[in-house]
Amino acid sequence: MQILKTVREMRARAEDARRSGVIIGLVPTMGFFHEGHLSLMRRARAECGLVAVSLFVNPTQFGPGEDLAAYPRDFERDCALAAAEGVDVMFAPEGAAMYADDHATFVNVERLTASLCGASRPGHFRGVATVVAKLFNVCRPHRAYFGLKDYQQVRVIETMIRDLDFDVELVRCPIVREPDGVAMSSRNSYLSPEERRAATILRRSLVAAGGQIEQGERDGAAVARRLRETIEAEPLARVDYAEVVDAESLAPLGRIDHSALVAVAVRIGRARLIDNLVVEAG
Amino acid sequence: MQILKTVREMRARAEDARRSGVIIGLVPTMGFFHEGHLSLMRRARAECGLVAVSLFVNPTQFGPGEDLAAYPRDFERDCALAAAEGVDVMFAPEGAAMYADDHATFVNVERLTASLCGASRPGHFRGVATVVAKLFNVCRPHRAYFGLKDYQQVRVIETMIRDLDFDVELVRCPIVREPDGVAMSSRNSYLSPEERRAATILRRSLVAAGGQIEQGERDGAAVARRLRETIEAEPLARVDYAEVVDAESLAPLGRIDHSALVAVAVRIGRARLIDNLVVEAG
Repeated sequence: MQILKTVREMRARAEDARRSGVIIGLVPTMGFFHEGHLSLMRRARAECGLVAVSLFVNPTQFGPGEDLAAYPRDFERDCALAAAEGVDVMFAPEGAAMYADDHATFVNVERLTASLCGASRPGHFRGVATVVAKLFNVCRPHRAYFGLKDYQQVRVIETMIRDLDFDVELVRCPIVREPDGVAMSSRNSYLSPEERRAATILRRSLVAAGGQIEQGERDGAAVARRLRETIEAEPLARVDYAEVVDAESLAPLGRIDHSALVAVAVRIGRARLIDNLVVEAG
Repeated sequence: MQILKTVREMRARAEDARRSGVIIGLVPTMGFFHEGHLSLMRRARAECGLVAVSLFVNPTQFGPGEDLAAYPRDFERDCALAAAEGVDVMFAPEGAAMYADDHATFVNVERLTASLCGASRPGHFRGVATVVAKLFNVCRPHRAYFGLKDYQQVRVIETMIRDLDFDVELVRCPIVREPDGVAMSSRNSYLSPEERRAATILRRSLVAAGGQIEQGERDGAAVARRLRETIEAEPLARVDYAEVVDAESLAPLGRIDHSALVAVAVRIGRARLIDNLVVEAG
């Protein structure tokens, strides 16, 4: 596995591959790999001639007071895990290689980013869309692999691809969970054992909400209210949001009559965890 | 000359050229060609294997009450002129081909767009940067040709290219002028003969300001004040702005001690005209 640290090297590698007609798959990550990341690499490996993984803890998607400095890192381990999945190129730029001191250009996806994590974390998706646009321009992927745990991120990047005419296919990949249902997340490493047990409330609350909708409940606000109550019954959990929204526009869903996203963000200890469930209501 | 109306066709043509190792030059325009546009096409023709001209009157760079509907158009004549310059591809998409009804993604270049035309025309450069990002992604140019009459636009696009890692070289091309010094502009067509004579005040005021700086004047505010007074002496002219700024950052320049941009925007009749002069002060 090649490890490339500069935009120039990564760009040259991607151009070479393109010129040879090789399909490039990109897995954009912030590192500290878990089974969720590895599942994206595996899917890319199965579908692409060149698999590039970017590893960059992107400062512009963290707000003031968020966990940028504390974000877990283990570059050696990450390289070993990626190599074992058959990744061809690890693109791991330094911060200074990605942002000039007077960096001034940002990509904003409007509306979609007004709700959920966009509302809780102002500027987060501006940072995400900007760094992904940069990664697309440097790595020139035909396909980019994103996990559905960050469902809003998937919709933001899909919209950016369409609106800015990026010639990239976003591949949606399923959430990977621990045996007890907790979604894999690098931030699970922040949890004490007791907090880790409490974290099961996210998935349990989502499954309960999904069950209500399947049994005919069509009032989005009622489902969201019970979702919040279920989470609040867990003493270690503080709800950031608990919502039922349109799965495409992410706008609040009064009446559930088509594809709905049930989404939660919950603080447990010093971790902020997210999870979601898409429910098709016929 | 091929005329392509869809993103799909243009993308395929560009990909073909890239795969064959052909250098692509893009001249982005809003049509109604004059000698300024043609000079860009000639330069691109001399330097590139495939010359693409985009012709799109981009709605997102016009504000409410601006001249989007009135903007002059003559597609047949434009095609004849471009063909005569040896242009290979005219990319002339319809509005609906470029913007989905629920288009939501915009590229913002901050700071640089706070002054000059960015201050007079809120949202203008957001529209410009967004459409140029789209054109870069569809036409995949190695080089893009921009005229220096829109000096701030050149700086905005140069910054976007750097910040978002577009693999495009922006080629700065000199302002082309009429014999009496008036900068070529599609909007000159709005002028009555009397207004057209009054329009010489832009260039004359810039030359006078340049002369003052060459003679040792270093007070940016004083130069800007006399610049404005010179223009205001023309009864048909209303100053939109008349400024002396840093030629790179476009921030106001108190003391002129390096590269300065003297820039004016002036309303004459229903036209808003711009012009500028870069002065090197040692």
